Amino acid sequence: MYRIVLDVMGGDFAPFSTLKGAELALQKFPELHLCLVGKETVLKSFKNEERVSLYYTEEVVGMDESPKDALKKKNASIFKGLELLKNREAQAFVSAGNSGAIVAGAIFILGRIEGVRRPAIATLIPSLKEPFVLIDSGANVDSKPFDLFQFGLMGSIFLEKVWKRKKPKIALLSIGEEMGKGNILVKKAHQLFISSNLNYVGNIESRDIFRGDVDVVVCDGFIGNICLKLSEGLAEVILEMLKSEVKNSFIYILGMKLAEGAIKNFKKKADWREHGGAPLLGVKGNVIIAHGRSDAIAIKNAIKVAIDFIKFNPIEHLEKAIIETLKIEEES
Amino acid sequence: MYRIVLDVMGGDFAPFSTLKGAELALQKFPELHLCLVGKETVLKSFKNEERVSLYYTEEVVGMDESPKDALKKKNASIFKGLELLKNREAQAFVSAGNSGAIVAGAIFILGRIEGVRRPAIATLIPSLKEPFVLIDSGANVDSKPFDLFQFGLMGSIFLEKVWKRKKPKIALLSIGEEMGKGNILVKKAHQLFISSNLNYVGNIESRDIFRGDVDVVVCDGFIGNICLKLSEGLAEVILEMLKSEVKNSFIYILGMKLAEGAIKNFKKKADWREHGGAPLLGVKGNVIIAHGRSDAIAIKNAIKVAIDFIKFNPIEHLEKAIIETLKIEEES
Repeated sequence: MYRIVLDVMGGDFAPFSTLKGAELALQKFPELHLCLVGKETVLKSFKNEERVSLYYTEEVVGMDESPKDALKKKNASIFKGLELLKNREAQAFVSAGNSGAIVAGAIFILGRIEGVRRPAIATLIPSLKEPFVLIDSGANVDSKPFDLFQFGLMGSIFLEKVWKRKKPKIALLSIGEEMGKGNILVKKAHQLFISSNLNYVGNIESRDIFRGDVDVVVCDGFIGNICLKLSEGLAEVILEMLKSEVKNSFIYILGMKLAEGAIKNFKKKADWREHGGAPLLGVKGNVIIAHGRSDAIAIKNAIKVAIDFIKFNPIEHLEKAIIETLKIEEES
Repeated sequence: MYRIVLDVMGGDFAPFSTLKGAELALQKFPELHLCLVGKETVLKSFKNEERVSLYYTEEVVGMDESPKDALKKKNASIFKGLELLKNREAQAFVSAGNSGAIVAGAIFILGRIEGVRRPAIATLIPSLKEPFVLIDSGANVDSKPFDLFQFGLMGSIFLEKVWKRKKPKIALLSIGEEMGKGNILVKKAHQLFISSNLNYVGNIESRDIFRGDVDVVVCDGFIGNICLKLSEGLAEVILEMLKSEVKNSFIYILGMKLAEGAIKNFKKKADWREHGGAPLLGVKGNVIIAHGRSDAIAIKNAIKVAIDFIKFNPIEHLEKAIIETLKIEEES
């Protein structure tokens, strides 16, 4: 059995999305046992069965609360869920809640893997080929060069162990392809990568990340988060602009109607819901952060990611690999 | 007459694009006088007329050369063109060449406006409403808080004086809307903005910039450049994905064919060529950087931007406003 905690209160559309997502996941994965954490009134409506355990708490972290304020709510569903993971009552934790609070809570409750200074969020993003990992996509701001190096390492192990991608290609997100072009942070991180034995291929420009030629795109979390949200915003705006153009003529409407199937397929391909959840790498436990706007399908897919984490246990590999890299830091 | 220098050698499609663009601009703007700088063999093919002056130089800066290497080529078309501006033989300079070399050359040859530490590139980007300015979109990396503050001021004056936008709203690009959320750089710049009398509205998230609710989006050039290229790359990939989806069925092709007019209109709206050129703000002279991939239409439009700069002279306003802000820096 895979025992997974689901924070039922987390997400813009919770608890509807989370309860429905839990139901879908239980149907889909027969070896799943869910530990649901949330308000009693909410959980009572859930069809209880053998494969479900309920944990009641009345406290909830708001989506916009600062991590500092959030941490004061010790009994909030996020922290209570992480405690279950810590106490080995479950093997993975899934939440679509306040990501700052999840990161802070995970570091505080589970602790960091030895040698990791900054745990990072690894988000899978669709490309013209296979999805690539953007790491860090928002756990940290003001990272140091060695942090970026570790992000690359962690992203690479994640892809290799969980997604079975062979020798993932790692690149630094920068403003030119030429080796060593970028800001001070990127230039220094570049030096660390070239002196390592990782499959580092140099810089990548943001315009090229969606081509899918690189597997792990490394950047500071401030930039990663901006890239992630920019992509979402732009994709929405492009479809909106197309739609409003189409409204201008009957023939356009007819054409668009016929092309609708194509657009639906396209949307599915580019849909973050399909990938479900982004792991927080570098903490001692399987923590999967689902998108704040997750619907039931996204929650189900995040639970799928959690199952894969339990199955392939990338953390064990991370722990070993991180210890290796500490030698590099000492030398640098 | 508006006397404008055009670097005929600059751009991925030069000199074909620049010569054709020059021709289009001369047709369109009767009060234009063009000073064309480039190789003799190239310029000789241009139909000479009263409104054209030719300046021969055999040196050219490559699109991928580092600014440092570029500056050694003292007679390159970029620097020769900037010299013409410096010596008042022309009132504005336009190039689609190596933007790093243009920035370095402009600072070296023209000098900075008194009080400006870092000149910045202001790029107009289409949105669901009016275009907004992204500043700095690539002149600098590793900016300081006061640089960001000046970027906001310069972008605002540019929009106000050249585009007649009333009281442009300025926002800091960050990872949350809440005041003061972001990295150290953004947090410190925020303090400078709130203590000024600029029309500063707080943070904006990247997902929202294309909605067009804010006029000036301020960020470090490393991030600005990444955002710019990410948007270009993603827009291309989305259209590519749509196209390949459409190929899968005859009915889709028929539908797409009918919707083609809509897509063409949409592309035009979102097309960087329509806006032509991005000014380098903060140097003593009207310097317009056209997109490296400019075709003839984009070159013509960049020349149009240069004419507007001569007409409305935002630099004069910049000089005054910058002096005012130096008080804030002293106090901060």
